[in-house]
Amino acid sequence: MTSYRPLDAEALRACLGARNTLAARLGGAPADWVLREVSDGNLNTVFLVEGPTGALCCKQSLPHVRVDPDWKMPLDRTDFEARYMRAVSPFVGHLMPEFHAFDAELHLLVMEGLTHHRVLRTALADGTAAAGFSARIGEYVGRTAFHTSWRGRPFEAVMKNVARFARNTTLTRITVDLVLTDPCVPDCPRNRPLSPDLDETVAALQSDSTLRDAVSRLQERFLCCPQALLHGDLHTGSVMVHGDDVRVIDGEFALMGPIGFDCGLYLGNLLLHACARPERREWMQDEIALFWRSLEHLYRDLWDENPQAGDVGALLSPESRRSAQAATLRAIRRDSAGFAGLELIRRTIGYAQVADYALTPDRVAEAEARRRALALGRTLILGATMDEAVEACFQ
Amino acid sequence: MTSYRPLDAEALRACLGARNTLAARLGGAPADWVLREVSDGNLNTVFLVEGPTGALCCKQSLPHVRVDPDWKMPLDRTDFEARYMRAVSPFVGHLMPEFHAFDAELHLLVMEGLTHHRVLRTALADGTAAAGFSARIGEYVGRTAFHTSWRGRPFEAVMKNVARFARNTTLTRITVDLVLTDPCVPDCPRNRPLSPDLDETVAALQSDSTLRDAVSRLQERFLCCPQALLHGDLHTGSVMVHGDDVRVIDGEFALMGPIGFDCGLYLGNLLLHACARPERREWMQDEIALFWRSLEHLYRDLWDENPQAGDVGALLSPESRRSAQAATLRAIRRDSAGFAGLELIRRTIGYAQVADYALTPDRVAEAEARRRALALGRTLILGATMDEAVEACFQ
Repeated sequence: MTSYRPLDAEALRACLGARNTLAARLGGAPADWVLREVSDGNLNTVFLVEGPTGALCCKQSLPHVRVDPDWKMPLDRTDFEARYMRAVSPFVGHLMPEFHAFDAELHLLVMEGLTHHRVLRTALADGTAAAGFSARIGEYVGRTAFHTSWRGRPFEAVMKNVARFARNTTLTRITVDLVLTDPCVPDCPRNRPLSPDLDETVAALQSDSTLRDAVSRLQERFLCCPQALLHGDLHTGSVMVHGDDVRVIDGEFALMGPIGFDCGLYLGNLLLHACARPERREWMQDEIALFWRSLEHLYRDLWDENPQAGDVGALLSPESRRSAQAATLRAIRRDSAGFAGLELIRRTIGYAQVADYALTPDRVAEAEARRRALALGRTLILGATMDEAVEACFQ
Repeated sequence: MTSYRPLDAEALRACLGARNTLAARLGGAPADWVLREVSDGNLNTVFLVEGPTGALCCKQSLPHVRVDPDWKMPLDRTDFEARYMRAVSPFVGHLMPEFHAFDAELHLLVMEGLTHHRVLRTALADGTAAAGFSARIGEYVGRTAFHTSWRGRPFEAVMKNVARFARNTTLTRITVDLVLTDPCVPDCPRNRPLSPDLDETVAALQSDSTLRDAVSRLQERFLCCPQALLHGDLHTGSVMVHGDDVRVIDGEFALMGPIGFDCGLYLGNLLLHACARPERREWMQDEIALFWRSLEHLYRDLWDENPQAGDVGALLSPESRRSAQAATLRAIRRDSAGFAGLELIRRTIGYAQVADYALTPDRVAEAEARRRALALGRTLILGATMDEAVEACFQ
């Protein structure tokens, strides 16, 4: 027996009205609340509910992909998002919306409503994003990466997240297919048709066996390296900004994986934006540098402050710890470059593309932007650092 | 409500008598059955039950370590052994005893009784082991390592084992402490006092910061590299032999981890035997070579026969697959050397030592054997191959 049903605005109003704590956050009477559907991602229904004294964001799973009702999907994805929010909120504070409640039967997640924030991708598109947001994202990744890792907690606590998120296979399958496989597969039906100008470039990419070998190594790295609890889908559409307040949302793809995967997805999306708007290349490079400075600084500090917090690393002397930190951060950067490369390619030829390409002035410029993103992606996957790849591909 | 109670011989007789399928395997009437307690490991109670037409081995968890009733322990360890047997038996056939039944309330595991087999460690000690057994162990590890890995199955199937065995934390804690940490910790109360002749050697080992750094990397490798479902405690006491019939038992430490961990524990125990009986060094080296030949051959064949079985590797061309196989096997050998080194050290100075040292003719020879094992262990942990380390330490 399950009482699951997709909620429309009025059903949601009744549902929130019946829950005292949530109703009290909104204030006034249910009839006073203003509900707006703001579904923006591909998967779920999202409502923003505003009352006289507060706002809530309510996210509910549908039994299918929201934008494609024929693509059936189990309902448990908001369950994983709720678990993720509970797992990382003690470490990231106001870098994510406050978690309020989760209804397991309705698969309904209720969190702080961010009424003034805008999605970072949109804010970048219309020029309202204030430079420097990446420092906060670096902080977010640094904090979650340390505190949910084998260095930050006894292994029993980490294994709890391993066990919990290993069951998030429906969404992980999407990542394995759409991010880590399809872009290398000629004629994959999930890839999008592009302008014929790009046919040759795409065909060359998909028949490149050196690239496939490197992608194969990244697949293994993604599945077989549970360093920390990842957000799992940390692109510029999963970040909301308002002035210098930055929040990470949409953790339903959460899984234990290599820290460089979260970094790579995020940075790959900054590079995509730079491909679409080449005049912003330096700004995006500054954001990348800010991200790393913030992440690395924080990750080192947290480790120095908690040298005995986990089983891994507890044997190290302070000097050895510093070498281990440097080696760990180098490896994170290496992974990040590869995963950023995959993100650049899959967002350019795969199923889920990015709105950034609509910012190009015409079709010629768009094809050029896509070609650059593919070249950048390939260069990164084959082992270049981010600086080297940008240098080589923006000439 | 649980009906758990530790079973003595008569209670076990009644319990088996009440289960038709098991009683039928034994044949005759319960009064005809001969029950012998054969508990040999540190943790559980084990009975061998023989009837007119068959034999059963019955293993039950106790609420404490069998050899130390003050060391309390949850009962679920036979649950994990039963899950492990079910998970790998389709791949290893008669290389493990046949699984018959598991009673979740009694935490009682019932499997094929091996009445003629002897524990390999004992058979090595008294000279009844027939050379060549390591080919079967190499086959066992090769089969389990391929079929339970990201290359051998779709990732959803692997994640099921990840989720399941990530909960085996009680026994994994023993490995993390006794194998991966304690031997490097001066004055650790769980380490055993040794002959004062060895004080200086042990003190030098435990203050060696290069060694601790390398052990710290192995800790991370153990916890953060779930390549395949491991046995987790594959020493010569977890293998039974009878002529050339070889069986692996005692999978209660099972977890997802680096394939080199199973290899390293096994090979480390062959090297321990060679330290205690230096005249058998060449034999043990032959066993090591046999182990690798068998494992590598099988692992390559299985991968070639199932190139699309898993998500990882499905993009590779046949040529690329061969390079990937070589790289994977090199990495397994590298890990194995390190874990073998840890096993050599922990079995020489740690909580759970090995009977092999009792084979030395006198205390001087024993101290010499232990000193050699420690040197060999250190050399392996610091990165030598097994051949190099043996060459350097047996002069």
